[in-house]
Amino acid sequence: MTPNDAPSNAESQPVELRPIGWVRSPLVDRKSAPKQGHEGSPDAWLEFRPAVLEGLRDLRVGSEVIVLTWLDRASRDVLVTHPRDDPTSPELGVFSTRSPDRPNPIGLHPVEIVAIDGARIQVRNLEALDGTPVLDVKPVLDRRLQE
Amino acid sequence: MTPNDAPSNAESQPVELRPIGWVRSPLVDRKSAPKQGHEGSPDAWLEFRPAVLEGLRDLRVGSEVIVLTWLDRASRDVLVTHPRDDPTSPELGVFSTRSPDRPNPIGLHPVEIVAIDGARIQVRNLEALDGTPVLDVKPVLDRRLQE
Repeated sequence: MTPNDAPSNAESQPVELRPIGWVRSPLVDRKSAPKQGHEGSPDAWLEFRPAVLEGLRDLRVGSEVIVLTWLDRASRDVLVTHPRDDPTSPELGVFSTRSPDRPNPIGLHPVEIVAIDGARIQVRNLEALDGTPVLDVKPVLDRRLQE
Repeated sequence: MTPNDAPSNAESQPVELRPIGWVRSPLVDRKSAPKQGHEGSPDAWLEFRPAVLEGLRDLRVGSEVIVLTWLDRASRDVLVTHPRDDPTSPELGVFSTRSPDRPNPIGLHPVEIVAIDGARIQVRNLEALDGTPVLDVKPVLDRRLQE
């Protein structure tokens, strides 16, 4: 197999995500949710599956991490959109926006850990809705992902 | 349905990713790939599906974007690892590392667009391997994701 076979193989083998946890937040609908975490989002809890607890063991209160979520209430067939749901703003291709409506609606949320309680982790300023699946947690590391 | 129903519903409905494109890179195996994009990675092309072309229309040469990939050669059953594949470094929970081996191996790559040719986009400093599925492209926007 040459590397050039990858597209056809990958197309025939869909990729399945397995949520590692879920968001517990007072935000329950898109209309009332802020567009970005730093625009007045509440603190929220991340409830992880007990099966991934070992992977969380080195997270600490005060750490800045990037939480990846699956924005399960998004529309996946949108390619052009009005940024920030504002019908007066010019349309943009979705890959030039942070709109949740896109082919693979993965949310990136830079947050600070404010509490840890076993497999539950409380974070500051998370704009994801209650019940949103959590896919991954990564430390802020790359020079272009740091403040 | 209350928001508290979300976990059980989500667990019974696995999430399927649909690659929007693939990486074309001289990097063909993990051993020779740098750990992070700014550590001497080559330029690479992203070849997108024609079906998503409209979503790319507002990307420009010189823009900084975050490319999300599916690290398809990673191991998904790892929860604790030696950072940077260095057996002498202390083990850490994977959610405190950027190791590709993790339950949902999604790669985050901050890159600069250096050329655009239809549904092909060339980017600087991408450490992903040739054939890696591309999931999403997002503008650098959040204050904590900017340089």
